[in-house]
Amino acid sequence: MITEKMRPRRKFAAGAPPGTLHVDPNAPRPLVSILAYGPGDIEESRPESLDEIRDALSRFQVTWVNVDGLGDLETLTRIQDIFGLHRLALEDVVNVHQRPKAELYEDHLFVVARMPRLGAELATEQFSLFLGKGYVLTFQETPGDCLDSVRERIRNERPRIRAGGPDYLAYAILDAVIDAYFPLLEGIGDRLEGLESEILRRPHSSQVPILHDLKRDLMNLRRYVWPLREVLAGFVREESPLITEATKLYLRDCYDHTIQIMDLLESYRDVASGLMDLYLSSISNRMNEVMKVLTIIATIFIPLGFIAGLYGMNFNPEISRWNMP
Amino acid sequence: MITEKMRPRRKFAAGAPPGTLHVDPNAPRPLVSILAYGPGDIEESRPESLDEIRDALSRFQVTWVNVDGLGDLETLTRIQDIFGLHRLALEDVVNVHQRPKAELYEDHLFVVARMPRLGAELATEQFSLFLGKGYVLTFQETPGDCLDSVRERIRNERPRIRAGGPDYLAYAILDAVIDAYFPLLEGIGDRLEGLESEILRRPHSSQVPILHDLKRDLMNLRRYVWPLREVLAGFVREESPLITEATKLYLRDCYDHTIQIMDLLESYRDVASGLMDLYLSSISNRMNEVMKVLTIIATIFIPLGFIAGLYGMNFNPEISRWNMP
Amino acid sequence: MITEKMRPRRKFAAGAPPGTLHVDPNAPRPLVSILAYGPGDIEESRPESLDEIRDALSRFQVTWVNVDGLGDLETLTRIQDIFGLHRLALEDVVNVHQRPKAELYEDHLFVVARMPRLGAELATEQFSLFLGKGYVLTFQETPGDCLDSVRERIRNERPRIRAGGPDYLAYAILDAVIDAYFPLLEGIGDRLEGLESEILRRPHSSQVPILHDLKRDLMNLRRYVWPLREVLAGFVREESPLITEATKLYLRDCYDHTIQIMDLLESYRDVASGLMDLYLSSISNRMNEVMKVLTIIATIFIPLGFIAGLYGMNFNPEISRWNMP
Amino acid sequence: MITEKMRPRRKFAAGAPPGTLHVDPNAPRPLVSILAYGPGDIEESRPESLDEIRDALSRFQVTWVNVDGLGDLETLTRIQDIFGLHRLALEDVVNVHQRPKAELYEDHLFVVARMPRLGAELATEQFSLFLGKGYVLTFQETPGDCLDSVRERIRNERPRIRAGGPDYLAYAILDAVIDAYFPLLEGIGDRLEGLESEILRRPHSSQVPILHDLKRDLMNLRRYVWPLREVLAGFVREESPLITEATKLYLRDCYDHTIQIMDLLESYRDVASGLMDLYLSSISNRMNEVMKVLTIIATIFIPLGFIAGLYGMNFNPEISRWNMP
Amino acid sequence: MITEKMRPRRKFAAGAPPGTLHVDPNAPRPLVSILAYGPGDIEESRPESLDEIRDALSRFQVTWVNVDGLGDLETLTRIQDIFGLHRLALEDVVNVHQRPKAELYEDHLFVVARMPRLGAELATEQFSLFLGKGYVLTFQETPGDCLDSVRERIRNERPRIRAGGPDYLAYAILDAVIDAYFPLLEGIGDRLEGLESEILRRPHSSQVPILHDLKRDLMNLRRYVWPLREVLAGFVREESPLITEATKLYLRDCYDHTIQIMDLLESYRDVASGLMDLYLSSISNRMNEVMKVLTIIATIFIPLGFIAGLYGMNFNPEISRWNMP
Repeated sequence: MITEKMRPRRKFAAGAPPGTLHVDPNAPRPLVSILAYGPGDIEESRPESLDEIRDALSRFQVTWVNVDGLGDLETLTRIQDIFGLHRLALEDVVNVHQRPKAELYEDHLFVVARMPRLGAELATEQFSLFLGKGYVLTFQETPGDCLDSVRERIRNERPRIRAGGPDYLAYAILDAVIDAYFPLLEGIGDRLEGLESEILRRPHSSQVPILHDLKRDLMNLRRYVWPLREVLAGFVREESPLITEATKLYLRDCYDHTIQIMDLLESYRDVASGLMDLYLSSISNRMNEVMKVLTIIATIFIPLGFIAGLYGMNFNPEISRWNMP
Repeated sequence: MITEKMRPRRKFAAGAPPGTLHVDPNAPRPLVSILAYGPGDIEESRPESLDEIRDALSRFQVTWVNVDGLGDLETLTRIQDIFGLHRLALEDVVNVHQRPKAELYEDHLFVVARMPRLGAELATEQFSLFLGKGYVLTFQETPGDCLDSVRERIRNERPRIRAGGPDYLAYAILDAVIDAYFPLLEGIGDRLEGLESEILRRPHSSQVPILHDLKRDLMNLRRYVWPLREVLAGFVREESPLITEATKLYLRDCYDHTIQIMDLLESYRDVASGLMDLYLSSISNRMNEVMKVLTIIATIFIPLGFIAGLYGMNFNPEISRWNMP
Repeated sequence: MITEKMRPRRKFAAGAPPGTLHVDPNAPRPLVSILAYGPGDIEESRPESLDEIRDALSRFQVTWVNVDGLGDLETLTRIQDIFGLHRLALEDVVNVHQRPKAELYEDHLFVVARMPRLGAELATEQFSLFLGKGYVLTFQETPGDCLDSVRERIRNERPRIRAGGPDYLAYAILDAVIDAYFPLLEGIGDRLEGLESEILRRPHSSQVPILHDLKRDLMNLRRYVWPLREVLAGFVREESPLITEATKLYLRDCYDHTIQIMDLLESYRDVASGLMDLYLSSISNRMNEVMKVLTIIATIFIPLGFIAGLYGMNFNPEISRWNMP
Repeated sequence: MITEKMRPRRKFAAGAPPGTLHVDPNAPRPLVSILAYGPGDIEESRPESLDEIRDALSRFQVTWVNVDGLGDLETLTRIQDIFGLHRLALEDVVNVHQRPKAELYEDHLFVVARMPRLGAELATEQFSLFLGKGYVLTFQETPGDCLDSVRERIRNERPRIRAGGPDYLAYAILDAVIDAYFPLLEGIGDRLEGLESEILRRPHSSQVPILHDLKRDLMNLRRYVWPLREVLAGFVREESPLITEATKLYLRDCYDHTIQIMDLLESYRDVASGLMDLYLSSISNRMNEVMKVLTIIATIFIPLGFIAGLYGMNFNPEISRWNMP
Repeated sequence: MITEKMRPRRKFAAGAPPGTLHVDPNAPRPLVSILAYGPGDIEESRPESLDEIRDALSRFQVTWVNVDGLGDLETLTRIQDIFGLHRLALEDVVNVHQRPKAELYEDHLFVVARMPRLGAELATEQFSLFLGKGYVLTFQETPGDCLDSVRERIRNERPRIRAGGPDYLAYAILDAVIDAYFPLLEGIGDRLEGLESEILRRPHSSQVPILHDLKRDLMNLRRYVWPLREVLAGFVREESPLITEATKLYLRDCYDHTIQIMDLLESYRDVASGLMDLYLSSISNRMNEVMKVLTIIATIFIPLGFIAGLYGMNFNPEISRWNMP
């Protein structure tokens, strides 16, 4: 089962001024990594000082700064200063139960999404991405992600990503996040098909809570992917200088994938409802069978028992016609 | 359970001319308080005479007049005169079963919303807000509200709110009202999860009315929040000089929160429907179990009883073959 | 129960040329009344000759002609001539099972609505209104209506209505018609709450037809009010010289009321569906209880009866081991 | 029950080039009739040669050519030539399971609709109409239709239709076709109400297939009328010189009728669903009653039977305490 | 049952860079065939070298290149080079679980659809089509398709297709693909009607899984056809020089067919839901019948058995009044 609770968002911030950063003290401390590149050169580092970010920004065509962990206010505010992020956006980064959305600020685009957690079965974490001039800045709740394929492509000097601007990098990252949903869907599809063949073969009351769990997983996935669809549709329409026309073609492809996920989720939902019907009707059937057995037994033996009882009467006709001993 | 009845609105006004003020004589008498401030100065008072309002309006950049209680016609009409409110708007303030809505009059914006009542579990009251040049005017049904965090921020000279205009104050107030829904949602979420684990563990007929209540609460919350969403969407689109572009960014954030609430409510609704299915299927199952026990007992012992009966027959072969004593 | 049948409209007109007036001979004969006024003067009369209408039109700023009863073709066609009404509109007036709608003809606006019948519990009648230059013309099926409050306001020289043009009068009339739905809603709300507490306390099969009736009433009310909403939305958007901007503000308020009614109807519908679920689940529960009692009794006494039967056997070991008497 | 099967359309044409005319050899042979008129003159004929059509077209203001039966390819292609019809349109005429639709070709408008078959209870046939300069051309599957009222109006020199152009004639024909649905609706309404009172009085398993049939009839009617609504909405919006503004007012009225039919169908559907609920709940109730009787009987007599059995034991205390004979 | 699994799309490509061609090594090797023609000449060939494609493109007005099988990367990339296809498009061709869609690239239109597989009962395969200047390029998963009727028409020198450009050919191919759905629909319709008459005659638990399968088939068909509808609607609106106005008329017709299929699927779905209700209600009925028999038997014979037991008591009044032997 998807482990997140359906909890409302603002754990700390209820009643707080907007733009306040309430850092969860139990969250992992931020781990910053830089991956900067141009068509010809590349540099990867875990900076000791955040000033190295400024340095990379000035020297490379594209700088990707990734932050794993949101547990330290100071680091976050310093990054905010370096990139000139809007307070509301940083608030959304830190409050980790955001609805996926995109926001266009003056000089950067901001996207919040949920990213399936690597390895874990159905867990997700909040993923935030800023796209600005010459940089992509990403925040994750915990270390470890589904973006290694993107990093590999950069390291291996794949021409399209190395020659592309930060908008192409942002697309490649979002595409990898969306692709990470497919294994989850495959898992749910397998569970559904297993459950279906089981219910068809031998319906049992233990299958109902499993179906209930499956439905909730579908519902949660839907909640994560549905707004992503709007986010990407917004990107394709957006007239921002941050996104080139060439990248929009790729974003459209990415958008098609979210539609495909939604289609699958819709189908799964229909199948899950059908399974419930299947289960209930087979329960009714079995009840019918049980009742028929009972009725046949009772119809045969209760009258026979009565006849046997008749012959067992100590009817003494000598005393009176309707005597009772 | 949410205590408001699902009653139609115009208790007094059916057939009355529009714009008529029918004051509920049992409502609390109005308590007026003023909180006026600019970037550098601040003044808080409970005015003895309503003329102090005029005075504050002229001296401060932003004046927030709050009225608790709607039980006195004269006070209300005098406030109407001071701020030049439209009759229809004031009628909506007094008739406290309005659907949340926003209305743009010539020189003020008018918003009606439902505000969760402080402390009470799921009770709400009507909250009306007027935004005009240099002032925010709010009306509540009873004293006590969820806006103390806003007041604190003003008093503590938080720069953003002190430097912002009345539109920023209006945003901050609306944001606080919407934030006040999150604890309610959390409460319902907890009740739902509790009920779910209980139904999974041990379904009982007493859970059905609880589920029924939960569904009604969800329905009522939906009725309160859904129109709020439209209200805020309208604000973001509005081309009024009363709302600056900078504040619109904040209002958009606020709008996102209402969408998030709607998402959660939708999810809760799905879960509640699933719980009903879960309950019914477990009831069917239990019935099946009971019937199986009955059938097994009957199938074994009714035939056995018949055989015992057979041996108990006083069959006297001497009289006749099929005699009956 | 709402008494109108769900009958298709064109009782007489199927296959007839459009614009044909088929007057129901059993309908009450038309009773014409005139209420003409300006800011300073007012005249009320039941004209003996229809020419008095022309006279009033020429002398007063606003003339309200009300026709109760649609049973006389001649009167109707004469009124048609006086006001220059479109044939299709008059056909709609006479065929009294119209769907509420608004139509903009060259020099008049035409509205059909259903008006709750005064006093009767849930009965409605067709109400038609023409708004033209200097006049409002209304048609009702039977005498007696919910518009007396409007008449009183005119007679009592309430400034807003006396100074307003015919568009304000039309608004006031429509507002009164919509307000007349609120008592109906209140009645249904009371019946729903009564039924709810009864079903929670003691479910009984006699409650199902009552719920069925309630659902039909809700469905009918929905059919009457839903198109009214569109009608009013159309008015607010309409760029007709017949409706001033000032009146549009009032019409918007009126439109909000129809939305509020629809909201309530939707809520009631949800509650009614919930009640059916509640009823069915309690029936299932009771069945379960009954079956449990049966099973307990049978499980205890059928085996006991068998044992008693065993001891009642006339087993004669002297004859043979498994003898049977 | 509506007799048409829910069959896919292209019986013959699957895989055939578009615009191919596959004439059903079993269809009735075409019967052509001409009704040509102007404000002053009229001519009705069953032409021996199709050239008479050309003649009528040249001499009269409006020529209505009606073709009953689609069973002869040659006649149809000659008519196609005379009027210059598009191949795709004629294909749609011949393949008689079209979805109702309207198509605007260069110099003619083409409408396909389903027309209730005269006399038959719920049967419909395909009805095609071409509107061009000076003519209306209609195709029906079989002779006999609901258009005699239109013909009568033309013959009786009703001024509106005689003075109107072919667009008014087309409107009058479509209006008659739509009006022909009202008796069908009335029939279904009567069946629904009969079934309702029967189910309320005495639910029986034979009512379920009747309800099932009713639901399918409603579904089919919906399939026929829903697209008609779009067709008429399209006409009202259409900027074609073939339709005058005056006729559009009438088409709008016609459009309102289709909305009214849809409203009724929707209501009927709701009622039908409610009836199923009613039936199922009364079945549950009856089961409950039966079970209660069984349980009461069993609870009283099984223990009593056990006691009687006790006294029937041949307990012989002389042999042993727990002897068994 | 439709054999495709509801599997997510990117089997190989999860995490791969976009535009990567992952060729399934088990897929059939590509078989290329050329059908080139103009109004007067035609040439059909299975080219040994792909250079023949370039040759045909230069010599003929329309060249249709069809590729059966996607199992060889080299062939596919060479074809990509010849036609200058976009990488993303070719990726979609190779990953064969695409959602049907259309994409407009700079100098070619790209369509993905699902094509019913010839002969097989409900199997489909992915079908991709490129429309460019002077050519139509199609890809299929396996040899054998429903396009022979199109080929025949070209060979038989049917003037419309021979004189038409590549856009008409593309239309003819899409039309044939959509037409191939009608037999599938007919098959499902027959199964539904068979199941319906069976359930009405003799409901049995074995019918539920059949109904479940039917519902899934309907759901899958819906998933294939619904996006096709959007694709065609997009074509009709498209302002591309690749599609002439004349062809758009035909595409509109094609679009109407997809709507008709959707209508039928919708109807089938309603019927399938109705069948489930029918089945469940007849199961309830039968249970009722069984219970009634049981209750009648029990009500008659249990009391009788008790009376017989009474007379069977060895009541010995000589010992004591309430003695027990």
